[in-house]
Amino acid sequence: MSELEARLAALRERVEAALGEWLPLPADDPGQLFAATRYSALEGGKRLRPALCLLGAEAVGGDVARALPAACALEMIHVYSLVHDDLPAMDDDDLRRGRPTCHKAYSEWLAILVGDGLQTRAFETLALAYADDPPLGLDLVRLLAEASGNLGMVGGQVRDMAAMGRDLDEAALEAVHREKTGALLRAAVLLGARIGGAQASDARFHALDRYARALGLAFQVADDILDCTASTAELGKTAGKDAEQGKLTYVSLLGLEGARSKAKALEATALAALSELGPAAEPLRQLASYVVDRGA
Amino acid sequence: MSELEARLAALRERVEAALGEWLPLPADDPGQLFAATRYSALEGGKRLRPALCLLGAEAVGGDVARALPAACALEMIHVYSLVHDDLPAMDDDDLRRGRPTCHKAYSEWLAILVGDGLQTRAFETLALAYADDPPLGLDLVRLLAEASGNLGMVGGQVRDMAAMGRDLDEAALEAVHREKTGALLRAAVLLGARIGGAQASDARFHALDRYARALGLAFQVADDILDCTASTAELGKTAGKDAEQGKLTYVSLLGLEGARSKAKALEATALAALSELGPAAEPLRQLASYVVDRGA
Repeated sequence: MSELEARLAALRERVEAALGEWLPLPADDPGQLFAATRYSALEGGKRLRPALCLLGAEAVGGDVARALPAACALEMIHVYSLVHDDLPAMDDDDLRRGRPTCHKAYSEWLAILVGDGLQTRAFETLALAYADDPPLGLDLVRLLAEASGNLGMVGGQVRDMAAMGRDLDEAALEAVHREKTGALLRAAVLLGARIGGAQASDARFHALDRYARALGLAFQVADDILDCTASTAELGKTAGKDAEQGKLTYVSLLGLEGARSKAKALEATALAALSELGPAAEPLRQLASYVVDRGA
Repeated sequence: MSELEARLAALRERVEAALGEWLPLPADDPGQLFAATRYSALEGGKRLRPALCLLGAEAVGGDVARALPAACALEMIHVYSLVHDDLPAMDDDDLRRGRPTCHKAYSEWLAILVGDGLQTRAFETLALAYADDPPLGLDLVRLLAEASGNLGMVGGQVRDMAAMGRDLDEAALEAVHREKTGALLRAAVLLGARIGGAQASDARFHALDRYARALGLAFQVADDILDCTASTAELGKTAGKDAEQGKLTYVSLLGLEGARSKAKALEATALAALSELGPAAEPLRQLASYVVDRGA
């Protein structure tokens, strides 16, 4: 295990412990709502967004523990989007993180409500955890909402669904991913940076923003490569699904080698963005290479 | 038109204008996401939650205009819950506010995402509109999230779905409605009171809380009465649906006359709660009687 992998595993453990506390199982659990929420949120997952948030705080000299609730809020938004994206009316997927999807394990109506409640809990977590610093807390709410709403994650998912079976060029594909996955990955780094003490006007904040934009796209390119090279067992979700559904991917657009080159170029952009940051940003540098090498 | 009805119509007009501004239609509307959002949010509706918020602010001497963004956020949460509740996997309803439901007019996948985006926009609206007073803004985020999450509206909807066809007693039915509709109606008054200048520790805040709890339940009892006495055309949604789906209602539990007596008793409780408040609370008093008389 590399130094980064050990670090990520340690962060993942802290995030999962904190997530378990923010998503408790009450004695009275109406219709298994809380159990289904925990089923979807607590098992498996790379916890990439939480890691980006925690390492973003660290990169500007902040405290990892202070960023933990925001890391959980980001993961709640991510999990809610997965639960809804897997629904029969959307991507209609049976497998997620190696197990039946929420609507398969429980029911379709409960999965809709699990997603709804997870989104609410994300904002509630920010309001509760940062009540001692309301200007910070309200700024985090705004950043998270901007990244996950109609001009971010939700809008990107709509673009993706609406584009099914249509021809997109590379610019249009990038627009989908910038919103669908990029916006929340970017928000993860920026929430961490704000909690770590960087103001939106700081040069470090802008450097991390450039890093996060490149990383977010690199992640998607690597994901597209993995979807057509890895097995369902390796992925923990149905492999080859994108090609089967006629979805445009970086592989279908650029070919496998072209997609790999693009991922490497984005890695270089991400690393260059961090050149002014000191050794505290080293884990983020390693993470950029790690994300790209997943698909190599 | 009564004095109250004229007042409600004027408030409704202001709320709908503000909602239209908070939910704009951009030139680039991916997959009709914004159009479907406006379709669901801007046409029809009693706008009861916004009215409670605005009149709650006024009742403690606050400014109605200052409460307008929160009134919009409350309505966004309400509309998102309607769009999701109408889905085939939930209540499977074709008609809402006299028109095809969102998933009928657009598609099921888009309706899921319209609801998701409306929830996000509600919290974003609070973060943007109250950025000049972060302690207030963050408190509003917390109150709205508590009311609409797993221990509020979402949890109540789960209880309601899980209880379908089962026998509940009056206490269990009240628990469903306290969460499903009561929590957000209560939040509407409390958000208004906070914006109007009342602190959570104020006697006026507690008086409005008692008022809102009674009003929320009275509203549900009146709704149950209407569902079995009014026509689909009068309701703007499918009438008699509850009885058809075997849902327990206050009418099935207490009979029509029993339900009417209960509504009158709750009206009295709501009015008593406001006895210490001055003439600024007069519209809220009239509203309690108005809500109950709807079902009389």
